[in-house]
Formats: sequence, structure tokens, C-alpha cells
Amino acid sequence: MTAPLPARPGKITLVGLGPGAIEHMSGRARAAIAEADTIIGYAAYIRLVAELLPGKEVIKKAMTEELDRVHEAVDRARQGKNVALISSGDVGVYGMAGATYETLFQAGWTPDDDIAVEVVPGTSAINSCAALVGAPLTHDFCAISLSDLLTHWPVIARRLNAAAAADFVVALYNPKSGRRTRQIAEARRLFLAHRRPETPVAIVKSAYRARQHIEFATLDSLLDADIGMLSTVLIGNSSTFIQHGRMVTPRGYANKYETASGAAHRGERAGHSLSSGLDGWLAALREEHANGQSIAALASRFQLPPDYIAATLADADEALHAASDTAHDA
Amino acid sequence: MTAPLPARPGKITLVGLGPGAIEHMSGRARAAIAEADTIIGYAAYIRLVAELLPGKEVIKKAMTEELDRVHEAVDRARQGKNVALISSGDVGVYGMAGATYETLFQAGWTPDDDIAVEVVPGTSAINSCAALVGAPLTHDFCAISLSDLLTHWPVIARRLNAAAAADFVVALYNPKSGRRTRQIAEARRLFLAHRRPETPVAIVKSAYRARQHIEFATLDSLLDADIGMLSTVLIGNSSTFIQHGRMVTPRGYANKYETASGAAHRGERAGHSLSSGLDGWLAALREEHANGQSIAALASRFQLPPDYIAATLADADEALHAASDTAHDA
Repeated sequence: MTAPLPARPGKITLVGLGPGAIEHMSGRARAAIAEADTIIGYAAYIRLVAELLPGKEVIKKAMTEELDRVHEAVDRARQGKNVALISSGDVGVYGMAGATYETLFQAGWTPDDDIAVEVVPGTSAINSCAALVGAPLTHDFCAISLSDLLTHWPVIARRLNAAAAADFVVALYNPKSGRRTRQIAEARRLFLAHRRPETPVAIVKSAYRARQHIEFATLDSLLDADIGMLSTVLIGNSSTFIQHGRMVTPRGYANKYETASGAAHRGERAGHSLSSGLDGWLAALREEHANGQSIAALASRFQLPPDYIAATLADADEALHAASDTAHDA
Repeated sequence: MTAPLPARPGKITLVGLGPGAIEHMSGRARAAIAEADTIIGYAAYIRLVAELLPGKEVIKKAMTEELDRVHEAVDRARQGKNVALISSGDVGVYGMAGATYETLFQAGWTPDDDIAVEVVPGTSAINSCAALVGAPLTHDFCAISLSDLLTHWPVIARRLNAAAAADFVVALYNPKSGRRTRQIAEARRLFLAHRRPETPVAIVKSAYRARQHIEFATLDSLLDADIGMLSTVLIGNSSTFIQHGRMVTPRGYANKYETASGAAHRGERAGHSLSSGLDGWLAALREEHANGQSIAALASRFQLPPDYIAATLADADEALHAASDTAHDA
């Protein structure tokens, strides 16, 4: 860096506020705001934490001025200020953390520079919305933003299609805005090619804020729901259900245990992989292949790439040969 | 319910502690523990918050006793106790929240019952690990657990394959244990069919705890890294890079703006969808189809299902006819 050194080192702290209510902020997020000289953020987020800000320089920016916010933060940090860049949810999820590092790198920043950078993690919208509706994230999940302001639509569509086909629970961020109304309809169309119309959906608006609104729907009825800028849409996987107003994705205990007695099913052991886990599946695959099942037939049955089936079978053969070599050596 | 009503209503609060350091807990999580009579959790999580527990009944359970923990909680809540079921990270992510609702439903619980249930969201491992390594979650991401204790391997493998193909940033939870060592190698194999060997990977162990350890690797070198029970593995997408020890996924500002001047590229407008966003892409699709490009060719080029291409084109035709009808009416 050729700029003159500041009187004292500056700092940029990227702070995720969590869903919005101050009680859902972490202690570290509160402390980071308390330590800061300057707070920069979208006006709506500044309002959420107004009571923490007396005595500080506060810079409010409009929604689309993300890069401006970062430039202001870097300028102030160069002057030796401690700057908190705040956002709702987790600041790393579609958030300011990426733009900040990108801008710093372009300016020649390194970790030895006189600007320190800290990212304070927070509770992201997918987590806060899930907590409000029940327990939908008990199994593998994805977050997909429907905003095409910075992303080509085919990239978004491919991810929607893949997530729907592979039975992920999915959270749609930025599902709709005043100008973007068709993206959610396209997402629904892509999902309906793989999932039942009755697949449960939850739409959560302004989680943990004054105007919080929760609505349950199905993939079929999704477009009738009230969806806007402040909504997150949670789409269940093929096992997710809604009962008594709670959306729940089973973890899979029923794959191993009897519901009534809690005893393990025959062939299953607590603390061990399922009999259809990796090792058991590979053994079955080997046996079926030895019995004449083709790689193409196995790939189609398990909905996995033929190359993957072929490679695991080749590995298994190798392991068998190695084992028989060892036995021979012994 | 036929059991006698308790003297006072009980409560089960499911509390996500965040990464582990008390300063990363939310205010609501601390308050929920303070309000509770009984704290139930895996022994390691109990230790993380030991300083908050004096004067409370504390029930420590082993890792595999999840359902036991839930049954203890329901029993105590039936006696009118306020019970906090704690877990690290977010209690809804592969956590106790699902098992609790499932158990309550099986016991005939409804929201009008004398047991209240609250889920307190927290910062999940994907978020805390991301904050420590930089800003990898600036674009669409998935969480996939490699544990096959309750999940059939082909289900896990299909999700790994889909996430790799659709270019998600991916967090692998439960990547490895004493008994499960091959799952991570299979995950790497599935990814390498779609991603470059140089794809950046971060392995974070014990985030924000005393033995925190961060290691960067590539997909190619992943298996040489120190990976265990307490690790989360973050795999970048095709744009993710590591620079100066920070892992960053670009948000996509370069798709719209000149890096140097900050001006929008020709044809792009701040606050509006990209020219290759949904509307622009649909218009281009329609034009190319009108110029003789087959649906199969378009599907292959955009790596999207032919049915999806056909359906969007049919919709576009319908919209055009509707518009021309309107023009005719006017």
C-alpha cells in the first residue's frame, strides 16, 4: 500500500444481526456494534438496532448501494476508524462479507495491512424461519436466491432443478420483488417436475419482527400465497409434513428404530451405519453386479451416474484383491 | 391426552448454542437457559455452557442417545418443568428439534396441550465456519450430512452429485468419524466428476472453541487434510477463490459492473435484473427457437430439462397471443 499509514489501525467488522429482534443477536454482534465508531448499513437494518447506536456515526444506504457501503467502510477504516458494516441474518449469506473482501483485495489489501477484518456470524433467514415453523431442516438443505440482478437465470434454474430432483429441503431467498414476479412461478414449475403438488411449503415474512407473518401452502398453491421482498419460502423434501401447524422433516429414525419400542430393526445397530449405508450398499452393489446386473441398470435404479457406479465397483474389486493378496501373504 | 394435567404447564425449549463460545449465543438462547429448570444435552455441549447452569438439574447424555434426550424432556415437561434441550449450532439443523416434534406428535401432543414448545434458532456450523474462513456463502449453497447412520447412502450420493453438478457451494456436516472414513472419499469422487481438482476447500474443526483449527485444501488434496468428528468441510463453487488466507465466493457484481469505474456494463441497469436474467433469457430463448434452434439443442446448451424449455416457450407464446389479442381489442 502506498497510502500514508493512519494514526491507528482501522477495522472493518462485518456483523450479522440475525433475524431482526435484538434478542436474537449474538453477544459478539452486540459487542462489535458497541466497539464501533461508525455503523454502515441499509436503512431498514439500522432501524432494527437503533437503540444500540447513540453517539456513533451512522451511515444509511439504500438497498442497491452495497458497493457504496463497502467503499465508505474502507475509506473510514483507512482513517483509523472501527467500522461495523451491518446486515440482517448472517452477513456471509448473500451478504456484505463477500463484497468487502473482493473490494479490499482489489485495493491491494493483505491481512498484514493496517485494516483488520472480522466477520461475526449470525442466524441466517433459513434458520430463523425454520425455527418459527417447526423443524424443516432436520435433513440436507439448500439456499437458492431467486434474484437475477447479479446471476444469470439459467444458473438459478439449474440449481432449482438439481435441488428439486435430489430431494433437498430448499429455502428460496429473495423470492419476489415489485419488479421480479415471475421467478417464483418458474421455481414452482421446476419443482413440480420432481415433487408432488402436495409438497408442504412455508412462507415466512419478517421473521421475529413486528409484522411477522407465517403462511403454510403446498407447491400446488404456492402462487396464491402472500410473497414479497421480506419473505423466505421453505419447500419441504419428499418426507416433510405439516401437522398441527408445525412443518417437520423426519431425521430418519424410522429407518433404524421401531417407533413403539425404540428397538433397532433387525440387522441395524445403534451408533453404526445403516445396513443400506455406504458399506452395506457397496456390498449389495458388488453382489448384484456379480449376479449379472449391468452398470447401466444399477445406475438407473439408484439414480446415480454410471461412471460413479463403475468406479465404486472397480475400487471394491481392488480392495478384494488386496485383501486376498494379504490373506495369501499371511 | 388422558394423563392427569400437571400442576402448571410445562415447556420444552430447543436451544441452539451457536458455534460453542458463549459470546456467539443469542440473547434469547441465554435467557431460555436461564429460565429453564432442567437442561438436557450431549455432555460436550453441557460443558460449553457450564457457567450458565448452577442451580439447575442437568442431564448429560451420550452422542447417540438423541431419542432418550427427547423422552426425558417430554417426561419432565409433563411434570410441569421448563426443560431446555440444548445442542451446538442451530438446533433445527440435523438437530433435536425434528426428533422432539416427531416424538410429541406420536404421543398425541397438540399446540393446545399443556406442554409449550419453542425453538430458539442459532448460528449453524456452516455459518460459523464460513465466517472464520472468509466469505464462501455469498452465493447459493447446500448442507449435506455424510452420516449414513440414519440415511441410505444412495440418497446422500444423489445429493452430492446434484450439488456438485449445479455448482452449489457445499458444506459437508459429519464428514468422518472413527468408523466412517470412506464417505468423504466417495464425496470427493462425486465432486471431481463435475468440478476442477483445484476447487478450493476449507476444513474447519471446533470453530470458535479452544482447539479451533482451520486448514485450506483443494478437492484434489482433500483426503490429506485432518478431518474428524468435529470438522465441517466447505467446498467452493466454480468461482470461489482463496487469497491471502481468505476463501471468497464472488456475489456476481462483475456480471453487471465495471470493476474499476463501478459503472454498469452496456445494457445493464442498477436495481434491475441482468440482461441474462429471467426476462432477458426468455426473450433470447424465444428468438433462437424462432430462428430454428430445437428444444433439445437449447436444453443441452443451457443444461436444463427439455420439458422446462418447452414449457417456458409455450408460456411465452401464450403471453404473446394474449398481448396481440389485447392490441386487437383496443
